[in-house]
Formats: sequence, C-alpha cells, structure tokens
Amino acid sequence: MAVVPVILCGGSGTRLWPVSRRDFAKQHVPILGGESPFQRTLQRIAATGLVGTPIVITSVGERFLAADQAAKAGVPIEIVLEPERRDTLPAIAVAAELAARRDPEAMALILPSDHLIPDFDAFARTVHAAAAAAAQGDLVTFGLTPTKPATSYGYIRPGALNGSGSRHIEAFEEKPTAERAAALIAEGCLWNSGMFCFQAKAGIKAIETYAPETAKAVARALAQGEDDLGALRIGPAFADAPKISFDYGIMEKTDRAVVVEADFEWSDIGDWREIWEQSAKDESGVALEGEAVALDVRNSYLRSDGRLVCALGVENIAVVDTPDAVLVAPLDRTQEVKDLVGKLAAQGRAEATEPARVHRPWGWYQTVDQGERFRVKRIQVAPGKQLSLQKHHHRAEHWVVVRGTAEVTRDNELLMVRENESVYLPLGCVHRLANPGKIPVEIIEVQTGAYLEEDDIVRIQDDFGRH
Amino acid sequence: MAVVPVILCGGSGTRLWPVSRRDFAKQHVPILGGESPFQRTLQRIAATGLVGTPIVITSVGERFLAADQAAKAGVPIEIVLEPERRDTLPAIAVAAELAARRDPEAMALILPSDHLIPDFDAFARTVHAAAAAAAQGDLVTFGLTPTKPATSYGYIRPGALNGSGSRHIEAFEEKPTAERAAALIAEGCLWNSGMFCFQAKAGIKAIETYAPETAKAVARALAQGEDDLGALRIGPAFADAPKISFDYGIMEKTDRAVVVEADFEWSDIGDWREIWEQSAKDESGVALEGEAVALDVRNSYLRSDGRLVCALGVENIAVVDTPDAVLVAPLDRTQEVKDLVGKLAAQGRAEATEPARVHRPWGWYQTVDQGERFRVKRIQVAPGKQLSLQKHHHRAEHWVVVRGTAEVTRDNELLMVRENESVYLPLGCVHRLANPGKIPVEIIEVQTGAYLEEDDIVRIQDDFGRH
Repeated sequence: MAVVPVILCGGSGTRLWPVSRRDFAKQHVPILGGESPFQRTLQRIAATGLVGTPIVITSVGERFLAADQAAKAGVPIEIVLEPERRDTLPAIAVAAELAARRDPEAMALILPSDHLIPDFDAFARTVHAAAAAAAQGDLVTFGLTPTKPATSYGYIRPGALNGSGSRHIEAFEEKPTAERAAALIAEGCLWNSGMFCFQAKAGIKAIETYAPETAKAVARALAQGEDDLGALRIGPAFADAPKISFDYGIMEKTDRAVVVEADFEWSDIGDWREIWEQSAKDESGVALEGEAVALDVRNSYLRSDGRLVCALGVENIAVVDTPDAVLVAPLDRTQEVKDLVGKLAAQGRAEATEPARVHRPWGWYQTVDQGERFRVKRIQVAPGKQLSLQKHHHRAEHWVVVRGTAEVTRDNELLMVRENESVYLPLGCVHRLANPGKIPVEIIEVQTGAYLEEDDIVRIQDDFGRH
Repeated sequence: MAVVPVILCGGSGTRLWPVSRRDFAKQHVPILGGESPFQRTLQRIAATGLVGTPIVITSVGERFLAADQAAKAGVPIEIVLEPERRDTLPAIAVAAELAARRDPEAMALILPSDHLIPDFDAFARTVHAAAAAAAQGDLVTFGLTPTKPATSYGYIRPGALNGSGSRHIEAFEEKPTAERAAALIAEGCLWNSGMFCFQAKAGIKAIETYAPETAKAVARALAQGEDDLGALRIGPAFADAPKISFDYGIMEKTDRAVVVEADFEWSDIGDWREIWEQSAKDESGVALEGEAVALDVRNSYLRSDGRLVCALGVENIAVVDTPDAVLVAPLDRTQEVKDLVGKLAAQGRAEATEPARVHRPWGWYQTVDQGERFRVKRIQVAPGKQLSLQKHHHRAEHWVVVRGTAEVTRDNELLMVRENESVYLPLGCVHRLANPGKIPVEIIEVQTGAYLEEDDIVRIQDDFGRH
C-alpha cells in the first residue's frame, strides 16, 4: 500500500505572536526544545514506517523555511506552492490528485503541520488503523478524545462500528457553546482533528461529486503548474476554487465519512496557554524558556529570545520576548492575541507580520541596530548559497566577515574575504555575497545612506528567480 | 546672602530597574519627558534666583554622567567625589565645610538629586522662607504635607511657630506602620523631605557638637583632598566617618532643629508606581512611554526604550523594557523591584548593575549584537573628546564611521575617517579614537577574536586618568 503523506502548511502566524508572524507561522516556530511543529510532523511521519516522500503544500513566502527545516530534520520533501491560501478543500484536492499521479492506488494521508503529538507510536498505530479503514473506500477522519469543552473545534458524533474498525459519522457540529460542548462530550462525541486518510481515487471521486467547481479549478491549476526551482508552483486558476474546508465541502456531504478514534495526547498549539500547558513547570506552575527570572510568580509562562525577562509578583501571565517586540497578557486570554495583531496590522506596524530575523532562500538577515542614515545587519549565508547579483541606488555597504569565508563579487573583481576581513561596496557598484564553503558565512553589514529600505535593490541575476 | 546649593547624588539604582542600574542611578534616568531628576533639580535651583554654583556630591562611577547632564541642562556645577557612600551626614558635613570655604557667612541648601517638584515657583518661595529662618542660626528641614500614610518616610511633629516663620520640631518618627502613619497625619505631622537649609557655620558647629567623629574624619578627608580632572576628590579618611543620616546624627539631637512647611507637589520617585502616578494617562488609566500598544488594559504603565511593547487584557501592571532586560510586575508591588535586583545580583547577572548603554567620560557605547568570536558595538564620542590611547591583546577591530568625522591614531599613522569610511585596527596595534569636530562622532565597531571582554585593554595614555 503506497501511502502519500501530505502536510498542509497553512496558518496566519497570529496565534503565537510575537514569535510567530505572517512570514514565520506557527508550524515553523521552534518550541518546546528547539524543533518546530513542522519538523516534528516530518519525524512523526517517518516513524510510522510509511516510506512515501511527504508532499508539503505551502506558500511562496515560507517555502525556503520549509525546505530548510526539512533538511535540518533530515527528511526529504516535495514542495507544492499554493499561489494563495484557499482553505483546506482546494489544497486537499491538489493533494489527492498528486498522490494519484504518484500511484493510482495510493492512499493519501493529510496532516496539518502545526499539531503536537508527543507519542509517535500511538500516532503510527492510529495511522495504520486509518489506512486499513480507508482501504474500504471510506474517507477517514481522525477523532480525538476531548479533554475540555472547547468552543473553537468541530465535534463528531461517532455511530456504529464498521468491520474495518472505523465508525460511521452520525453528525458534525462546528464550534458549539461551552455548555453544548460539555453535552456533546458527555454523549461521546469526538474532536474533529483535521487529519484525514483516504484512497486518492476515492477522494478525487468525492470532490468531483460534491465540489465539482473545486475539482475543475484544481485540474486547471495543476495543468498550469510549473517547476519553480524544484518545487511545483500551482497555476493561477487555483484562485477559482471556492474558499471552503474539506469538512464542510466533502465530509459533511458524503456517506463514506468515517472516523477512527485517535487515542493520543494532542495539541494544535492554539495559543501561549497551550505552550505553557505543554511545558515543564516548577512547583509554582511557572515555565521558563530562555533567559527568564521569576520572583514570587505563579502559573505563568516567561519566554526570552535573548534579553533578560524578569517577572515579579504576577500570576497567570504570559511574557513573550523577541528581538523587536514583547507581549504581556494573561495566560487565559492569549487566544485574543490575534486581535492584538490585527490592531498592530491596522496601524501598519511591520512587527505584526515580519519577523525580526528574515528568512531567505540563501539564509537569513536581522537588523541589529539602526540610526539616522545608517543600519546594521547580521547576515548568514548557508554553505553553497549566494545572494542575488545586485546594486543599490541609495546606499553604500561595509561588510565585515565574522565567520567563514565569503566570496564577494564587486563590479569586475572577485574577492575572497576571510574572517576578520572587510570589504567596502560603494553606492551603485554591482555586487554579490556568496558562500562557496562548508560552514555558514556570517557578516556584519553596515549600510550608510539617506534611504535604507529593502526595496532599494536592483537584482541583476538571482538563483531563486527573484526580480 | 550667599546660598551654596549642594546636591547629594546618592541612590543605589535598584528602584527603577531595569532603566536605572547601579552605574546609572535614578537621578540620571530620563523620565517624564526626557530630562532626568538631576537635571530638573539643577533647573529648579537656577529658578530660585540664588546664584551660587551648585556643588554636586557624587561617586566616581557617575561623575561624567553628572557632568554631561549638567552641561546639557546648561548649569555649571562643581563636582565633589566621595570615595564611597557613607549616608547623608558625612556628605552634608563635607558640604557645610565647602560652603564655609566659599564664604564664611554662606548658607548651605542641601537637596537630594532624585526628587520631582514640578512647581518651581512654590519651591523657590519655600527655599527663601527656609533661608530666612536659617538666618537665625537654626537648622531648617523642609516638611512636606503627607498625601498618604506612607510607611517608608520619616515624620516630623511641628511645634510652636517661631518669629522667623518656621516651627520648632517636637518629635521625629521614622518609618511608622500604616496605622501609626495615619494617626500622625491626623495630628498634623509632616514628611521629612531630606532637604535642609542652614548657615554653614551653624551646621559645622552642630556637627562638631553632636558628631565629633564625623567632623574629624571629614576634616582629615578634606585635607587629603586632591584635584581630579577639575573635581575635588575627597581623601580616604572619609571612610572613618560613621554611616549615619543627618536626621539621626544631628537633627534629632540639636535644639535648633526647625521645620518650614513646603507646600508643593513632590515625589521621590520611589518606584514605577510613582512614575505611573505622575504620567499622563488615558481614560483607562494607562500610561504609555515610547513604542507601546495596549489592548483592553487598565491602570497600567508600559514603557519601551525602542522595541514594541504590547499588553493585552492586563490590569495594574508595569512593563518596562530596555535593550537588555524587561520587567513585568504589578504596579502596587513595584517597590519590591529592589528584591528582584538583589536576586539578579546574587546570580552574578550583569544586568543587575550595568546599563546596556555604558556612559564614559568621552561619550557612551552599547553592545548591539554578539556571537561566537565577535561583538558589535555602537560608540558615540562627544565633540572635542577622545578615548584613551590603547591596545588589545586578543581582538582586532573594524570601525565604520556612521556620523561625523573621526580622527584615528593607528600606530604611527593619524587618519581622518569620514562618514561612510572605515578603518581596520589589527590585533596589538596602538590606537585611539578622537572627535576633533563640532558634532558627535558615531561609529559601528566590529570586534573579532577569541576573548572580547572590556578588561582586554592596555591604556597607554588617557585624558581621564584611567589605567
């Protein structure tokens, strides 16, 4: 049985702000020990013993981050680029089609990228049970045992047991009130996890039946698909697919919807409170991450990215510090952080969407200081990568290499610049920073000039197709 | 009548941590609009119309900061350096002696450096009233009308009115319980402000009578005094003066102690709650300083030094952000910040004592980034100033000038380095950074090497007597 794992990298990056941002969403945030939920998802898939290369459906903005994190996790992936976010049905329609192309008899295993499931063995058992059930032609969803009367999830009422170990779904109920949720739980309802397993051909057939508009738009979009530096870039017809979830569009309509009970600890890390719940805590209920100090603090989460975070005498508080923004909120109101981010975005603040450390296909950069007519950045270039050949109209740059050996193009010169050496790039010169070596190159860049924004760049050649 | 104003720059820098530090104490912190309490004290003195140059008694660690802030406030001062802090009596004994040297009939006006008194006119009226009373030979303290049953202040029970407009003091009571404080206030007691006015000769006589050990130690210490770059450095005998306050040592013993009622708004800025009380607030009681955003927040104080500070759904909270440390505490517990600082100091954390921006006689520096084998600093040199002629054993330095024109000594070379130019200082070279111009010089310094601490410095010549 060929199982094709498909990872959906959605998420707007607001829930774990300020660590997550639009351009650095939840699934890529290193949490609980340094790895991201996306990396853990890749490892969890590998541990099931299913050998198909995972397909990762993501955005142009996060593709290099996904590739980089997958490489660090040691898991090869295929990347599919959505031209825009259209909820889960269009993405899953793409996934079903690509799985069927790989093998007409393939089984598609659809997984969100931002779930935490610590018990890999229990996950693997559930996946195998789901695949066995899906082999009957059913569309299988993973039902989770509720742990609280959550109002933000969908609930599933399981019916009679099938021969294949799954249960028919009697009813779906989305986002009930807390009271209603408690009643649903008492009746044995399960949380709808957003994880699915089905035969690719069964999925395609269901989508053609219940969502023909989506099926057509996705077929056109795939026909328009192009290779983009090794990834599959879906065509613009994707935008014609209605914005709808796979649950609403298919599962609630088909009579082949079944549920397999997933008996494992699970979190979708919906807010900082969940991170706190999952974290190691002291006897006062305080979880510290990074350089944090608490004095007479109870039931709180203190997280630092480097700076010293100190709390005194508070209770039920989350303090989350990043290089450019700090958040303070009661733990039990951290689900409202998205409203705060909305307010910041409405004010046009870059901190709402852009992370302090900006990931690029070649590595990353971070502004570490700025003043009138100057800006200082730290730039890291991965081994074997290079930035575009470029020039600026309004700034000169001084580069000091602090790690590794950089190959610098400056007009007609090609210079090797070693650690503790520097090079000056006058305004208007055509230049490029490359790392031909085996370890990362890091430089400190001092920009001077009257205008120092990212858009003062003329790209002459770029390995990553940017203009 | 020659009035000699004397400003006592004491303070351990813990109460307004993390903005204040041991080496950047409360009186020098820019608050409530950018000026420091020390600068406001200088301006308040100038506004009284008393023309004597203020004597500022401070520590070696803060002398250049005091000089710099006084220059910025446009008020000439004389600086006296205490070799160590010995509470107020020894410092006031020095002040009385120096005032008498300036004029045997001088009147000494003793003022702490960290009080806020917004109404300059009311302050001036009280000073003139105090001076008139002191002209009778009395030792005058300024009594403040209590605004709350504070337990951290001393109380004064005023007695019968003198002909000179002051009142005899019937009793002193230090740090009462809240209940007792309320009773004292009901009886008409006043807060003891720590501000004094007396004839220098009357002060000297009282100290000789009631604190002869202090008088002798101070006399020896002044005899040992030396000029130190224009300041008077008191000799080591100062350490023989007992650590005692002027109130305990003199005012509670002499029968010449009188009080003048000070009828002005006053704060000693004892904690962040007081800053919040003095700040402009919105209708929810929220005071924002710098880049701060509040959503559904009540009665709170949010302060940023640059980064974006966001609070959501909190009440009665202070959030104070600095480049290297952030504090979160309930406003009504900010008086406990000193305990937190004690804990940090016990852990050996530099953030407990050293500010991120380190003030030096020539300007300041601040670390803006660091990594393995490198450190990046921003350095500002004031016009006409220069750093020591120095060398390092373990690091090389790259300097990029981002503002002004620097004069750089490098071994036998003397280089003018303009904005957007750089210079390299190899390991071991003898070098110096100077600003011969009229505007500040700012440079970005990139240090590389295996050891990058401040103590890798060999000073060959220094304008400021450092070794």
